[in-house]
Amino acid sequence: MTTTLEEIRSAADRLRGQIVRTPLVRAGRLSEQLGCELFLKLENLQHTGSFKDRGAYIRLTNLSKDEAKRGVIAMSAGNHAQGVAYHAQRLGIPATIVMPEFAPFSKVERTRAFGARILQTGDTLDASAEAAYQIAEEENLTFVHPFDDTDVIAGQGTVGLEILEDCPDVEAIVVPIGGGGLMSGVATVAKDANPSVQMIGVESELFPSMSDSIKGVKTMTGGQSLADGIAVKVPGKLTRAIIDKLVDDIAIVAESDIESAIQRLAEEQKLIAEGAGAAGVAALLANPERFAGRKVVAVICGGNIDLKLLSSILTRGLIRDGRMVRLRIGIIDRPGVLARIASLIGKTGSNIIEVYHQRLFYDVPAKQAEVDVVLETRNSEHVGEVVSSLKADGFPTRILSDISAQGTQ
Amino acid sequence: MTTTLEEIRSAADRLRGQIVRTPLVRAGRLSEQLGCELFLKLENLQHTGSFKDRGAYIRLTNLSKDEAKRGVIAMSAGNHAQGVAYHAQRLGIPATIVMPEFAPFSKVERTRAFGARILQTGDTLDASAEAAYQIAEEENLTFVHPFDDTDVIAGQGTVGLEILEDCPDVEAIVVPIGGGGLMSGVATVAKDANPSVQMIGVESELFPSMSDSIKGVKTMTGGQSLADGIAVKVPGKLTRAIIDKLVDDIAIVAESDIESAIQRLAEEQKLIAEGAGAAGVAALLANPERFAGRKVVAVICGGNIDLKLLSSILTRGLIRDGRMVRLRIGIIDRPGVLARIASLIGKTGSNIIEVYHQRLFYDVPAKQAEVDVVLETRNSEHVGEVVSSLKADGFPTRILSDISAQGTQ
Repeated sequence: MTTTLEEIRSAADRLRGQIVRTPLVRAGRLSEQLGCELFLKLENLQHTGSFKDRGAYIRLTNLSKDEAKRGVIAMSAGNHAQGVAYHAQRLGIPATIVMPEFAPFSKVERTRAFGARILQTGDTLDASAEAAYQIAEEENLTFVHPFDDTDVIAGQGTVGLEILEDCPDVEAIVVPIGGGGLMSGVATVAKDANPSVQMIGVESELFPSMSDSIKGVKTMTGGQSLADGIAVKVPGKLTRAIIDKLVDDIAIVAESDIESAIQRLAEEQKLIAEGAGAAGVAALLANPERFAGRKVVAVICGGNIDLKLLSSILTRGLIRDGRMVRLRIGIIDRPGVLARIASLIGKTGSNIIEVYHQRLFYDVPAKQAEVDVVLETRNSEHVGEVVSSLKADGFPTRILSDISAQGTQ
Repeated sequence: MTTTLEEIRSAADRLRGQIVRTPLVRAGRLSEQLGCELFLKLENLQHTGSFKDRGAYIRLTNLSKDEAKRGVIAMSAGNHAQGVAYHAQRLGIPATIVMPEFAPFSKVERTRAFGARILQTGDTLDASAEAAYQIAEEENLTFVHPFDDTDVIAGQGTVGLEILEDCPDVEAIVVPIGGGGLMSGVATVAKDANPSVQMIGVESELFPSMSDSIKGVKTMTGGQSLADGIAVKVPGKLTRAIIDKLVDDIAIVAESDIESAIQRLAEEQKLIAEGAGAAGVAALLANPERFAGRKVVAVICGGNIDLKLLSSILTRGLIRDGRMVRLRIGIIDRPGVLARIASLIGKTGSNIIEVYHQRLFYDVPAKQAEVDVVLETRNSEHVGEVVSSLKADGFPTRILSDISAQGTQ
């Protein structure tokens, strides 16, 4: 049993006017930097902030009258929860969403705002899923699977139809893989239209479950992934079969590449992507040669990132690029020294953002002290100039590599 | 002398393939919240992050061969600088950009990266403009005006053609006004297509220069506006005449509305807008009744916001919404008290992000102390619960209204 092109085409007809027909935009700056012609499919602009709206709508509108009346249940800490809750509300179908106890406040609140009954239970995703199946049985609710469902795959596949409509001569399509629903649908469409289109999946190094399953290896470690939207331990059965058959390769990306991709999308393309949403761009950043000179589409599959996390990533990006730095400067603790340091820094043209002057808690002799300053700088060379200038004036100075603990997260 | 529809149509022909044909997207979440049908024209996705690319290209390609060979000069701390530098580089025209001394590093570096000669001079925009005119004369360079130029207006007007193509039955178009180039072009197109389309300009309360000029009043105070892209002291002559004739009203928005609009665009629509770019949405947030039930387009004219500033705005938004709070808690300074507080907070289900425990510098008796905690909370009611719980256990607790000084900017 697989999802057919006809089912995807029919899903597209039914979705018209029910979801955002998202744009495919040329990413000029990233294209220049990566040496390919990159287009971004902006599913982060979808109503609930991810492509999940598509599959949820198709699944819900395929319920029998009786099933619709009894209601549905889904388990998700994230985008699937919102997609199901949103369309269930619009269609007048009672929805119960089981979320793990650790689900972020913002996601719980947002799902609740779509009128769903929220049950927070389970201290792991597995425990929550277990609870959801049990409640489904007890209350006679229809379980809406996040990916391993032919209706859901048909809905997600409409992303592929839109990509081909907007960019018929695409040469490679890069799609993040969690359970594999999105990739299954998009690959079905793309390979039918043109078998030479290269289909590249992307998984985080922490959750390469689909890649492991297809290769018959076990490299998955799990852990706290920035790309929580694709942190799936066990891929779907339907999706695995489709991906095994149609997908050319699955790129495994480092968490640090995902972080860079989030930052670059924000800075260069003015787009907010969540970790999973940025994973496609992470694969390009990690291996630009692979895509050089070609016309590539990356699906930005979601934008639901916690704003504190985003703030932290943006700040860390500035630090990495030498545009913000924290210095620890050794001083003799006497009047006027802070003014002297401020004056030296001012002369280098860098801008003091914060000063931490606490002589009591540093591990230095009593007559000495240390002061931390956070500076805005032009780039790494500029940081070097500032440090040299302070040292030349007799202030031992070192760069503290990470200021991210400092109030930005 | 005014810019004609034919000039704008011809500009559109010439711009094809030279700029990003930006999408118009339906903003579902903001539409629901505002009670209108809101579409966003995403000029923040333009190559240099703003609509300025359009006018710059038209102006530069209208230079004589001799002018192009001698080169151009422009004065700008922001988007105009990048638009001119980018297209000058592509067209092989030497470009000099005069920027004020206070221009942010990131904007200077980005403009320099487009290959322009950068001259940083002048401690006010007026002084920089003065310098630019002088250098133009000395070096025989063609001055490229940011808005008061018929070619530039024609280029910016193509934004209007695209809006009408994508949303022919638009009822109101909201356009930020700095010098007025964008609004002049868009209004020319829209009023020709349908005189009943309402054209609403937007200026910041700090720089209502066009509104003042048209109304013959003087309310402009100047100052540090979040919307630096439209912080223009003297509107254009050409643009003033067009706007006076074609624009229905100019909305004046508070800086706090601009900040909210930046935050809402990020959170609800996953889009990064600079202050000027968010000004249209600010006008809707400030006065939703005015647009209720109508089909409205807001032009997100730019996305070039400093990432530190964006981080700070996102964090402040969380605080405003009660999703993050800083509490100051009075304690008797003895072992175990911090653990007791942490435990009480944990029981309320809120999450401790930071703790500041410095008993030496607070203005309290020696045996007492105060501890500051930064918490992640669900909303304002949840903050209330946490405070009540601490008070009930004998800890005097107050909410510190603003934690934005705490490392986020």
